Amino acid sequence: MGRSTLEVLGAAAKSAKAAVARASTAQKNDALGFAADELGARAEAILDANRGDVDRAIADGVSAAVVDRLRLDAHRIASMAEGLLSVAALADPVGEIVDGWVRPNGLRVRRVRVPLGVVGIVYENRPNVTSDAAGLCLKSGNAALLRGSAGAIGSNIAIAAALRSGIEKADLPADSVVLVDDVRRETVTEFVRLRGTIDLLVPRGGQGLIALVLEEATVPFIIDGDGNCHVYVDASADLEMAERIIVNAKTQRPSVCNAMESLLVHEAVADAFLPRIARTLDGVELVGDDRVRQRLPEIAPATDADFATEFLDLKMSVGVVDDLDGAIAHIARYSSGHSEAIVTSDLASATRFCAEVDAAAVLVNTSTRFVDGGELGLGAEIGISTQKLHARGPMGLRELTSVKYVIDGDGQVRA
Amino acid sequence: MGRSTLEVLGAAAKSAKAAVARASTAQKNDALGFAADELGARAEAILDANRGDVDRAIADGVSAAVVDRLRLDAHRIASMAEGLLSVAALADPVGEIVDGWVRPNGLRVRRVRVPLGVVGIVYENRPNVTSDAAGLCLKSGNAALLRGSAGAIGSNIAIAAALRSGIEKADLPADSVVLVDDVRRETVTEFVRLRGTIDLLVPRGGQGLIALVLEEATVPFIIDGDGNCHVYVDASADLEMAERIIVNAKTQRPSVCNAMESLLVHEAVADAFLPRIARTLDGVELVGDDRVRQRLPEIAPATDADFATEFLDLKMSVGVVDDLDGAIAHIARYSSGHSEAIVTSDLASATRFCAEVDAAAVLVNTSTRFVDGGELGLGAEIGISTQKLHARGPMGLRELTSVKYVIDGDGQVRA
Repeated sequence: MGRSTLEVLGAAAKSAKAAVARASTAQKNDALGFAADELGARAEAILDANRGDVDRAIADGVSAAVVDRLRLDAHRIASMAEGLLSVAALADPVGEIVDGWVRPNGLRVRRVRVPLGVVGIVYENRPNVTSDAAGLCLKSGNAALLRGSAGAIGSNIAIAAALRSGIEKADLPADSVVLVDDVRRETVTEFVRLRGTIDLLVPRGGQGLIALVLEEATVPFIIDGDGNCHVYVDASADLEMAERIIVNAKTQRPSVCNAMESLLVHEAVADAFLPRIARTLDGVELVGDDRVRQRLPEIAPATDADFATEFLDLKMSVGVVDDLDGAIAHIARYSSGHSEAIVTSDLASATRFCAEVDAAAVLVNTSTRFVDGGELGLGAEIGISTQKLHARGPMGLRELTSVKYVIDGDGQVRA
Repeated sequence: MGRSTLEVLGAAAKSAKAAVARASTAQKNDALGFAADELGARAEAILDANRGDVDRAIADGVSAAVVDRLRLDAHRIASMAEGLLSVAALADPVGEIVDGWVRPNGLRVRRVRVPLGVVGIVYENRPNVTSDAAGLCLKSGNAALLRGSAGAIGSNIAIAAALRSGIEKADLPADSVVLVDDVRRETVTEFVRLRGTIDLLVPRGGQGLIALVLEEATVPFIIDGDGNCHVYVDASADLEMAERIIVNAKTQRPSVCNAMESLLVHEAVADAFLPRIARTLDGVELVGDDRVRQRLPEIAPATDADFATEFLDLKMSVGVVDDLDGAIAHIARYSSGHSEAIVTSDLASATRFCAEVDAAAVLVNTSTRFVDGGELGLGAEIGISTQKLHARGPMGLRELTSVKYVIDGDGQVRA
């Protein structure tokens, strides 16, 4: 008759949520500090556990890149602890009065920021997410229910034990952070159906996980989606600035979602700009449409699929457009709604681009790489939302909260 | 090979969304005004169509209450038109700058309120929803994709035609409002899976519809859920005020979600208050726990199911609690998270109740019936969210929008 482990673990997180929600900022910061201490104190045990995960991954023939993401060292553990301390230093969103007003009948209405309750996170082989996500959930007054990958389970158990021990030292329930240690594949599906337990699900993974969430989830979720990000070089662009921005957006860290994937160039500057940027981006594989290849005959043609692809690599699609309308139409067709930039010196072009391009972030004369919680000043991020509901763009502490109406009266009744 | 009608209709709404999103406030208000005019001008045609729906419902043996909701008359059509004009009078949420700041590197960041895109609404036999929902979507810059019931299809087609004609007179696309006229049951399932077309789904219906949405939807949605609303009479309550509030909350309109369903009374005032409120609520069927029935032996015992039930009728569950903790624990167990009230003169009780009760709205010394978009000053509402993501409580125009980051630079790149 027994409930499954996952239900028990979900119930544990749920049982902790009231205490976490009520905890003072000082208490939550203490918990983060103690948790950071515990990570340091248990570094050897965490590294031991991690070596087990890494050995298993290598024996299973997992790719070097995945092994690298999985592998911890003293420096990475110290970074996790520092991350917790920097979250402690952020402003507490809980209790913020979002707005408020008085009704003609004297009712005093305010909307107050409150925790969501239990935040569920499904993630892949990065053990640091265990600590990073737990810290953000805790500071925002939420219990965290974490479902990491089977490949990192040893590391995750050791990290979660350290966090829970630190949290208890601040007189908060250890179950403020609950790690799902049943990592059979089917528990992901069970996890996303814990309606009544999980108040927000943040799936952090690839297309397969997103598809599973869309099909199976009954809990509310936010999609941290792809970034097929464009930079459009307008006729009036400062071409030197455009070059600098494109190099940064494409090559500074090509494997992340806010990296640039596609370049659009206004016809009027295509002759001047395309050969120049192609030279500068030596080492980046370019594919282009016919009008690009008239200027750069050495590159391969870009297919429709290329324009729709988030390469996450040193590869970029390039197109020439007639004008701003052409750029906006191309972006409307291919964009994943993440981050879209224009380089221009024309006020009307900048204004129209920002108004008409439908994305989490639109940028003028700067790099798409800035669309990041840290870079925008949110302090930290639990993901970047490409959906429009609740949170759009980088999600920080505030995006891990809800609001509550508080209505004070003196006996008013409705007429 | 042809796409289904629903896909064609969804594509039509999607094709209109850019124009609606860009429309000025003046243009949207004109459209609402013309649409109101058209409802008036076409009142006879709408009433003819409605008579067909009503006759069919009667022939099908539908209940009198459902027929009443379905039936239109000149007054109801005038109300729909007035509703559109009152939406026109509301502030336009689009373009509001939610917040903004400057980063140390000089990047100027702002978050701007933008339309969601296409808002999909599934609703039951109330033809006025066609007009009300379309008006709210239009004013908030969204295209509306409306899927009403089979039973109201004639009325809905006539109303939608009037709205579309008015919208065109303001030089906006008629497809800003698209009615799904394929009302076979299976199109609901198709509708909630129009990912990429519908940016927000608001299902307005009963448990069956909610269950279908939870199981089948791939589009983002907001649940407009039940209201199992409590009023807790604290030891320090002004009992005359408590009586007035309970009468209002329970009887002013028992069939709606913000009506009170359950009364909790502090042990210290149970002897004084229970007989009094039972007399006053003559005509309301009470069911109570043992400690209530010690004072009111004539009423039936309340089962666990009673305490969990949203009666939507002149019936109410009653319980006695030891103290505030008991009230908060009872509410945590049975509440649907809609609206919860305390009557008290004790500051600490009020403060703790508001902090610890987890609901869209918590109220002190006033009636749960005020938890309504109009009463709270939102102007109008498209529903009342009982979920925590995106919108919580009454949803007005602002809740039909998203935000977009707009980031202005001068050539900044990421280090």
